[in-house]
Formats: sequence, C-alpha cells, structure tokens
Amino acid sequence: MVQEELFKKLIAHCKEYGFIFPSSEIYDGLSAVYDYGQNGVELKNNIKRYWWDSMVKLNENIVGLDSAIFMHPEIWKASGHVGAFNDPLIDNKDSKKRYRADVLIEDHMAKIEDKIEKEVEKARKRFGETFDEAMFRQTNPRVVENLEKIEDIRKRMVQTLESGDLEGVRQLIVDLEIVCPVSGSRNWTEVRQFNLMFETKVGSVSEDANTIYLRPETAQGIFVNFLNVQKTGRMKLPFGIAQIGKAFRNEIVARQFIFRMREFEQMEMQFFLRPGEEMKWYEYWKEARLRWHKALGTNPAKYRYHNHDKLAHYANAACDIEFEFPFGFKEVEGIHSRTDFDLSNHTKFSGKKLQYFDPETNENYIPFVVETSIGVDRMFLLIMASAYTEEKVDDGERIVLRIPPALAPVKVAVFPLIKKDGLPELARTILNDIKLDFNCHYDEKDTIGKRYRRHDAIGTPYCITVDHQSLEDGMVTIRDRDTMVQERIPIDRIRAIVEEKVSYRKLFEQL
Amino acid sequence: MVQEELFKKLIAHCKEYGFIFPSSEIYDGLSAVYDYGQNGVELKNNIKRYWWDSMVKLNENIVGLDSAIFMHPEIWKASGHVGAFNDPLIDNKDSKKRYRADVLIEDHMAKIEDKIEKEVEKARKRFGETFDEAMFRQTNPRVVENLEKIEDIRKRMVQTLESGDLEGVRQLIVDLEIVCPVSGSRNWTEVRQFNLMFETKVGSVSEDANTIYLRPETAQGIFVNFLNVQKTGRMKLPFGIAQIGKAFRNEIVARQFIFRMREFEQMEMQFFLRPGEEMKWYEYWKEARLRWHKALGTNPAKYRYHNHDKLAHYANAACDIEFEFPFGFKEVEGIHSRTDFDLSNHTKFSGKKLQYFDPETNENYIPFVVETSIGVDRMFLLIMASAYTEEKVDDGERIVLRIPPALAPVKVAVFPLIKKDGLPELARTILNDIKLDFNCHYDEKDTIGKRYRRHDAIGTPYCITVDHQSLEDGMVTIRDRDTMVQERIPIDRIRAIVEEKVSYRKLFEQL
Repeated sequence: MVQEELFKKLIAHCKEYGFIFPSSEIYDGLSAVYDYGQNGVELKNNIKRYWWDSMVKLNENIVGLDSAIFMHPEIWKASGHVGAFNDPLIDNKDSKKRYRADVLIEDHMAKIEDKIEKEVEKARKRFGETFDEAMFRQTNPRVVENLEKIEDIRKRMVQTLESGDLEGVRQLIVDLEIVCPVSGSRNWTEVRQFNLMFETKVGSVSEDANTIYLRPETAQGIFVNFLNVQKTGRMKLPFGIAQIGKAFRNEIVARQFIFRMREFEQMEMQFFLRPGEEMKWYEYWKEARLRWHKALGTNPAKYRYHNHDKLAHYANAACDIEFEFPFGFKEVEGIHSRTDFDLSNHTKFSGKKLQYFDPETNENYIPFVVETSIGVDRMFLLIMASAYTEEKVDDGERIVLRIPPALAPVKVAVFPLIKKDGLPELARTILNDIKLDFNCHYDEKDTIGKRYRRHDAIGTPYCITVDHQSLEDGMVTIRDRDTMVQERIPIDRIRAIVEEKVSYRKLFEQL
Repeated sequence: MVQEELFKKLIAHCKEYGFIFPSSEIYDGLSAVYDYGQNGVELKNNIKRYWWDSMVKLNENIVGLDSAIFMHPEIWKASGHVGAFNDPLIDNKDSKKRYRADVLIEDHMAKIEDKIEKEVEKARKRFGETFDEAMFRQTNPRVVENLEKIEDIRKRMVQTLESGDLEGVRQLIVDLEIVCPVSGSRNWTEVRQFNLMFETKVGSVSEDANTIYLRPETAQGIFVNFLNVQKTGRMKLPFGIAQIGKAFRNEIVARQFIFRMREFEQMEMQFFLRPGEEMKWYEYWKEARLRWHKALGTNPAKYRYHNHDKLAHYANAACDIEFEFPFGFKEVEGIHSRTDFDLSNHTKFSGKKLQYFDPETNENYIPFVVETSIGVDRMFLLIMASAYTEEKVDDGERIVLRIPPALAPVKVAVFPLIKKDGLPELARTILNDIKLDFNCHYDEKDTIGKRYRRHDAIGTPYCITVDHQSLEDGMVTIRDRDTMVQERIPIDRIRAIVEEKVSYRKLFEQL
C-alpha cells in the first residue's frame, strides 16, 4: 500500500519536474507511450553512456553497432518472431473489449491473493504483537484453501499456455467464472494468438511494396552483422557486439508506467564464443552485470537473480536480474545463453555461412552466444524509484532525488544570492567556465532555500551560491545534495570538486 | 568524374573499415537502409554529442527532449503531413515500375546536360590550351540550344508541380518522349500523389486498433510538448528545445548512399520567441549554425547558404546550409522561421491553448519559432567526405581519414613494438589506464607501419608505441595521424596530450 502510494507520487514527480510526460498529452495521450522531458532525457542519456562506455570502452574485445530499426522481413522468420511472438487474446462479445487471456487469469488470482491479505490483516489486528504470520498462513483453513486454489489455477494456466492449448485457456476462464471488467458478462470469444510485431509497408503502394516489421528486439541486428563486424574489425573469439536502440512491441496490456511500453529502448550485448565455453561466460556475465548495477550505489538488497526453470527455445541457460520496483520484484535485465540458435538459423534462411575460423584449432564453426539485455526505460525507472526520497529537514520537508551523481541530469546549479550588486555577473562568469564540462543551471529566482529545494527535486549534486563576500575573497558556498552540508571553497576549485563527484571514472573503477 | 570516383571509393572504404554496412546484407539488403558498424557508431555518437552539448550545455536557455516516434495520429493532420506530404508518382504500364515523376524529368535534363558536356570536351580537345569554356558555352549554337531546352523544361516542371497540376506534369513527360528505363515504352499511367509517411496499426486487430504514423520529422514532438517543457522547466522566452531522434520517410527514389534514407536521424532545435523578433533570431541561428560547422575545421569553401525563394506554407524565411558533397552542393542543414504555424495549428486541432504569458508585456500570445534542423546521417557523410584523403608517403601511399579529433571513433591506439619481452604487458598497463577516459585500441599484429596504416584508415589521431627503451626510461613514441611526426614522451603525459587534442572543449570555445 505504501509502495503503491510511492509509485503514484513518483509518476507525478516525473511529470512535474520534466522527467517524463505522457506522449501526445495535448491530444489526450497515446496509450503506453511516453516522452522524456528536459531532465528525463539527460538522465536517460547518462544511463546509456554508462552502459555503452562500460561495454565498449572498458572491454578491449567488445565493439559497438547501430543497426537500423527496419530490417529484411525474412530475418524475423529466421529468428522465430513471425511464428511464435504471440500473445493469447480473448474478446468479450458484449463490451467488445479485448484482453490478454493470461492477464485475465492473473487478475483473478490477484483477487484471491487480496482475500488472503485481508484475512491476514484481520488476524494481525486481533492478535497484536504475538501474531506469527507464517504460522497463520500455514494453518488458517480459509487461507490454506485459497492458496491451494491459486496454485491450481497457476498450474492449469502454465500448462495450457505452454502447450498452445488455447481451448484449454478459454475453458479455464469459463471455469473460474471470470467476468469482463467492463460489461460484467461472461460472453467470451475463442482465444486467439496475436503477433506482437508492428507491421508497415515499405516502397510505394504498387506490387513491389513489402511488408516489413518494426524490430521487436535489437539483438537480430547484431546477429545479421556478425560477419561484417568480425571481419572488418578483425575480431577474435571471444568478442562482443554492443548496441543501444529502439524496439517496438504491440503490447495489448501495457502497464506500470514506463515499465512496459509499446516503444522502448534496449541495450543489448551479444558475446560470441567457442561452443562449450558458454557456461563459463554465462556465469561471468551474470556477475559482471550485477556488479554494474551495484557500482551505482543503489541498494544491493533490492536486487536478486531469478534463474529460469523453463527455458526459451533458443536458450540453454537464462536468468533475470530482478529489482524490487514499487510494484514488486521484476526483471530489469536478462542474461541468456542462446547457443548457436540465431547464427544457425540465419545461416539456414540467408544461405550465407555465419561461421568463424578459429586460428587456434584450425576449425570453422558457428559461435555460441551469451547475451545481456537490459531495458533503458526500466533502468530509468529503477534509478528514479531508488532515488526518490521524502525527508524531514529543519525547515519542513524536502523531496530529494538521490540519483547517482554521474547520472544526474544537472551537475551544478549556480545561484547569485541576490539579483544585483554584481552577483549575477560573477555567477554567470563561473557558469560560463564550468558549463563546457558539466551540464549546469543558473537560477536567480526566489530564496536560496527554495532554489535548493528545486534542485533537490531533480537530483542536482551540487549548488553553488555567490554572495557579496565572494566578490572580495573569490570564495563561494558549495552545498551537497545528500548531506546538505555547506562549505566555502575558492572558485578555482569548483571544477575539481564536481569532477571528483560526478565522474564516470569512479563507477568504471568498480567494474 | 574524379568526384564520382571518390564517392565510390568512400562507400567502399566505409564498408571495409566498419563504418557503414548495407542493412540486412546477408539477406541481399533492404533498399535505402544502412547500419552503422563498430567505427561508424562511434563517429555518429560523437557527432550527436557535439551537437547536443553545443545546444543544451552551452546555451542556458536551451533544454533537451526525447519524445517518442509514435505520436497521436491527429498531430500529423495539424502539421499538414497527412494532407500535403506527398511525392508525385507515375507507373509504366508495361514494366509495372513506379517512378517519381519529377525524378524522371530531372534524369531527362541530366541527359541533355551530358550532351553539352560532351560538346565542351570535344571542343576542349580541339582547341587545347587556348580553349575558353565560358565563351564556348555562350556561343556554340548546339550548346545554347540545349541550355535553353533545359531551362524551358525546368520552368514547366516547377510550375506544374507547385500548382499541383498533375495532368500538366504527365503531359510534360509525354511531350519530352521520356521512356521507362526498364521497358523502354512510353505507356504511362496518370500521375498521383503518394504520401511519404509510414503507417502501422497500434492496439490489437479489433475495432479499437488505430492507424498511426512513424514520425517523418522530430519537430512535432517538440511542438506538442511546448507547454510541458515551458511550465515544468520554468522557461522564459526566448528559449529552445533540442531533440535528436529517428524519423522515417517512404522515399520512392532513395539515392546517394546515406544521404537520403528511409530511416534516418535528425537533430532539431525549435527556438520559441516573441512575435516580431523572428528575423533577428533567424539571422542569429543562420550564423551560429555555420560557425558550428566551421569549428570542426572542415574546409570553409565547401559551405554556402542557399536562401529559399519559394517558401513552405509554414515559413516566412528559410535557408539551407549547403555543403559540397562528392555529388555536388546539397543541403546538410535547414534554418527556418516557422512563424506560429505549428503552435497555432496544434491549438486548433487539440483544443489546448499553446500560449505563453509574457511577464514583461503582461500579454498572452502564441510564440513564433525559428528552427534549425540537421540530418545526423548527412553530417556523417559530410565528415567522411571531408576526411577521406589519399596521399603519397615515403613507403608508398596511405589512406587517412582526417576526422576532427573530437569526433574520431578511436582516440588512441597502443602498440607493443613486438609481442614479447614484457612489451605487451606495459602496453596494456597504459591502455588500462587511459581507456577509462578515451576510446582506445590495442593492436599487436603485423609491423608498426601496417598498424599505423590501419589506424590512419579509421582516423585515429594518435598511435603510441611501447619499445624496449620504454621499459627502462618510461618513455613511449607518440605518432600524430596528420603530420606523421613521432615524438618520445613520458607515459604520464599521454593523457594530457591526447586530452588537449581530442577534447570537445576546444570546439566549444569557438562557438
């Protein structure tokens, strides 16, 4: 409940302070699409830069790529997306509303979950401090019954969905007496598969126009360029190709703010390696990626691995790095051992041999791949959720975003104490020097206290105030976002102090 | 002719050295779409960073934005793109091939142009050194006649196209007896307008699915967020919003490598200002943008302004910054005074008042806009075309890319002279230190000379060689890409020397 409240506040804060706006808002919005505002775009770019540099700059054997969103349609047959990238959909005949069948069922389970929670809360109130929740959950008959119910439903759902038994999925909805949230009726159509890729036509409308897809993932752009990069970059196994770019999925149920959008951005790295060495590298990247997250100083207790029991058709090992978002633990990044599935299939579909000649073994073979795949937008939400803090201070309350300084949208704000006596001029002189190195703001409106609050709210690590004394002794007040400690320092030390705090170098040194 | 040759070599070089690959190449490519390789992506990112920082970091009153590619479809009605963003197309009934009518006519004019050139060349051979080309062009009857012919055709084409007289365009094609390059026949259909926006369906296939467009420009994302940014950023007029992002146009005739692609990237800045002040700011941005180009050290003689005589429906002043590409002077950037066209139309179509309250005049009004709009891919091509140099050196020939150092994909390459005696270890120690700051390469294969050539070919400003002497005195050889001068320097000076050369700061100081 507290977390739900926090999430609402966070969304409002994102809008109020120029981080995220609903897309096309003046036209009443476009569902599941968002725009990044003046502060959001800076944070987003900084996240991308942290990832890119940690991959491409720090690793001698990883290079970048920027492949187009438009690709040859055959690629999505080879990758399996044309055949298998589907959601099971069902329509209510009365309301004409369409739903994801699995989501209807999950919502039903969540309602039973709520009943259990209520039961638990009631008992907690009754027993007070002596209440043993774990024991209660195991022994209270109503709770036990409901837990078993949920377990049964989940089993049936997973089994029918995974075997493609769409009639079975429908029967489950019927058996559970699930009603349409809009019409309230149980008048359901069949369940059908719906492909999540967006289509468009390229070329003119004549007979040579082709249907192409907006890529649902960036990874395939890397696979089809494997040979180009390997040969022109003279790369030797093992080596990686990293890419940041937009991807698109026609999600029917898009939820949780920027967590699941129809247009989103991925940061993916495909690491090509000798077959047989995949488990070594899979473990290596699992650890390396979690280290990358933790270097940011975000709470380590909020991360966990989730190893996949059930593997995708292309994988022989897979796990997620999950983060505890305000709506629970959810995937922020995936590490997958994809075997030679993609390169083999592109070899088959394109007729070009995507092989590597290994000078050490004198053999030709198709490399195996371990990939790391993280959503930029999810990482953005992770940072914002970690950073958002309300706290009591001397003069009331403040909202401060404890964004890792290297990622903060604005690094330094420069204030003249008052708007005259040459203070604005000196403040601007300082600004004009350091703005070549850092993203800076100038602000002369309202009291210094209010200006501090405004910059706390967007996560600016340092505020610098120029006062009358500064004109005489060349010293200014620097104020730290997190500690709120103020110090007098000489103007010519500003750059070094800020640089020390906001540099990516400190993050990189932990990797 | 020489330029044509150069262009072919440049395209080949882009592929061979990992700058640009044809998209989906193993599937025989996707027309007018390209991927950026391991060196291309770095150059592209550096160009974007130079633009972004020069806009957002350097200007106190310009902030960034990252709006989505997907937007509400009504936006493209308001902007005029649904109604008027068209190309005139014509089909040949025999070959079933479709053409842009204006391109067919232009190709016809180019053929007459060729005839003139041949006449001139013949005369030049006949008269030798005494040949006066200008005089010949003015007096030779065949040349004069052909020049007049071209002039007449151009007039008719412009007149019919601009008045939307599609029948007139077709008649011109018929009168000129233009044949289909494929079938050779003159069996033409009518000329029709073809909208250049890509369409896709969002939502599921049920009745609530909407047709949306892939944005054909990034500018509208800025206009519809005007109020969000102005209010949450507390911006005062004049102020700007800058954005970098993908845009898409279903070009029928996509030509000249990455100059005109179906998927491309724009860097646009909309500068909002008080009505009446637009000419002042138009002139300001005209100059500021050319200064930005020239700060890169590219040849100033290759730039020119092209002021538009005929203005788009939304503009009251407009010009292009043109650059002399290998295929002639072409637009690389546009500066347009767009009046209040966009904000007014969005006010009309959305019903939301996109106004600004001016605290100085106590008035509400719709701001005017001056925009600067540059293509990332065109800028990329400009840099590559400027940089590509073949030159004679002591041991034969070299190809060197004189890319502005701040934009170079790799800043430093570190070589051990030979692969043993502890030289690779020292080279890697150096690399591991400076790679936190710069994009670096390590290379130990082949002779030093060959390694220099490889890095000349991708434009690496500095190569550093570690030899046996280095183990004793801590000095290395640093070699400059452009002068090829080699110097011995202490290891601990490497960072400062490279930083001095590759820093963006030096570019910014010229702006």
